Amino acid sequence: MQMKTLLLKKEEVSRLIRMKEVIGTVEEAYKAFNSDQVVQPDYIGIDLHPPRGDIDFKLGYYKGNEIISMKASSGGFPNNPTTYGVPSGMGTILLFDARTCALICVMDGSLITGLRTGACGAVSVKALARKNAKRITSIGTGNQARMQIRAINEIMKIEAIHAWDHTSESLSRYKADIEREFGIPVVMANSKKEAVEQADILITTTRGKGELVEAEWIKPGTHIVAIGTDAKGKQELDPEIFRNAKVVVDSITQCSEKGETQHPLSKNIMSKDGIHAEIGEVLLGEKPGRESDEEITIFDSTGMAIQDNTTATKIYRNAIENKIGTFFEFFE
Amino acid sequence: MQMKTLLLKKEEVSRLIRMKEVIGTVEEAYKAFNSDQVVQPDYIGIDLHPPRGDIDFKLGYYKGNEIISMKASSGGFPNNPTTYGVPSGMGTILLFDARTCALICVMDGSLITGLRTGACGAVSVKALARKNAKRITSIGTGNQARMQIRAINEIMKIEAIHAWDHTSESLSRYKADIEREFGIPVVMANSKKEAVEQADILITTTRGKGELVEAEWIKPGTHIVAIGTDAKGKQELDPEIFRNAKVVVDSITQCSEKGETQHPLSKNIMSKDGIHAEIGEVLLGEKPGRESDEEITIFDSTGMAIQDNTTATKIYRNAIENKIGTFFEFFE
Repeated sequence: MQMKTLLLKKEEVSRLIRMKEVIGTVEEAYKAFNSDQVVQPDYIGIDLHPPRGDIDFKLGYYKGNEIISMKASSGGFPNNPTTYGVPSGMGTILLFDARTCALICVMDGSLITGLRTGACGAVSVKALARKNAKRITSIGTGNQARMQIRAINEIMKIEAIHAWDHTSESLSRYKADIEREFGIPVVMANSKKEAVEQADILITTTRGKGELVEAEWIKPGTHIVAIGTDAKGKQELDPEIFRNAKVVVDSITQCSEKGETQHPLSKNIMSKDGIHAEIGEVLLGEKPGRESDEEITIFDSTGMAIQDNTTATKIYRNAIENKIGTFFEFFE
Repeated sequence: MQMKTLLLKKEEVSRLIRMKEVIGTVEEAYKAFNSDQVVQPDYIGIDLHPPRGDIDFKLGYYKGNEIISMKASSGGFPNNPTTYGVPSGMGTILLFDARTCALICVMDGSLITGLRTGACGAVSVKALARKNAKRITSIGTGNQARMQIRAINEIMKIEAIHAWDHTSESLSRYKADIEREFGIPVVMANSKKEAVEQADILITTTRGKGELVEAEWIKPGTHIVAIGTDAKGKQELDPEIFRNAKVVVDSITQCSEKGETQHPLSKNIMSKDGIHAEIGEVLLGEKPGRESDEEITIFDSTGMAIQDNTTATKIYRNAIENKIGTFFEFFE
């Protein structure tokens, strides 16, 4: 008996997937999640003592593709580069054929979280932003802020980006990079308020260390993509924003505990019943998306294992099709 | 930045570890577990629809070796060999350097569960059996029954084995294999009672489908190694055996729920306080092992992630030392 496992390096993974495809795999994941096609156990992890970070293991089974994925991802090891010569966060994805549980692929997993998180904003923009939205405001200018633009740029014409960050160096680098890579003009805002007031689409991608955006700054018709809050205690938005907004989440269970939605719930600004939909329901046509140009819509994303599953599966299939990667026989 | 990950095939794994070493790694694991050196989150898994089985992911961090292990193991896919040409159960182990969370090794994991489970009986025999024990009784004659003998044969002289199984074909094969491999005479018992009455050491390795061993058959001084029960509802022993026995477990938490110990607890034959020790406490000298030749001792083993950790780490180190395996760079 023999089993061939495909090994894919980081550089191969990066060549094997385009952002346009990731937008498709994330849409597929959201729809699958709301079609009773997904098994996602609670993730398990180990927290190490500072200055070390943590490592998580996220498991997802998608009946539609008969693939079980397991992503190990670590982060928060600031001394890794200098002391050990490895990145501060790394990732590995295993894919199993769910018909047999044979290990069909081991791939570097350090790019996928960024890609599938980037794509989720674009998926929400298609479903929830105004059709005439042109201006994006970016609170946060790190790697994930760029990913959001990379993805949204695939699905709409961005006229201008108003950006803000705590540090002006990061803001300047973001402006230079975005203008060079996408040719979209970036306005460096003098204040968060100034930036937010310009938004048709507001994206928050900070570390979630507290309220950054006040409710009165948000103009009618804005679509908000809330990315940075993915753990209990993190926060980016004034919870009052939720009071009169249409709230869409990736997973009600996850967002109630770990997403931006935890705050309006715990402050009784809204109840769980006040969550309009999981985004898969909107994509499946089971619940409406945006219904007027005046609505404020919020998409709260915490990230789901099934997004890793569909995205890694696409990478695997592209690799097989293009004969990229190295086969290894763990047993013969 | 560069990371070299060692890949080890099943055949290499089998060459890289001897049972004598596994007895050492399992002892190390038990001691570590009772020395506040271990983090073992609850395992996660996915149950597929019959005729498919399940896949589990078990995570363990051992501070003593600074290794995090993750074992994926599947089982119960009867159609795999004929329909898909792969075994009915498979396994993969990832090892991470806990200082950085870099992936240092991916090895086939289909042999390790059998090896470390085999070794646990021998570890318990050293700690709990009579020093003059000579005769073993084996209820069950499958792969794990052989593993138990392979391990115990490393630490004592076995004079004879009395064996019993539901099917006489399995029993005959066991006799032939054990006599050829170890030169130990095997008596094929006509009944369970006949076999059990001969035991200095009684080992049960069946699928745990119900009570097989009655309390009155057990003679004073017997050491019982209870292997087969590792899930809620499984059972091999009359729970009355526990009433006057010295009960030692691998993990009180696990054995109370999933081990043979679940039954005397649920029948109020004993309370959790009646569990004498976790075996690590005995090995560390914190609690006594056997204290007389008349005691009946029971070792209830459910299996812990930390046993996979110490055993796989030994295999990894042996591979590095002997320059066996294939390095793969998941990123450069």
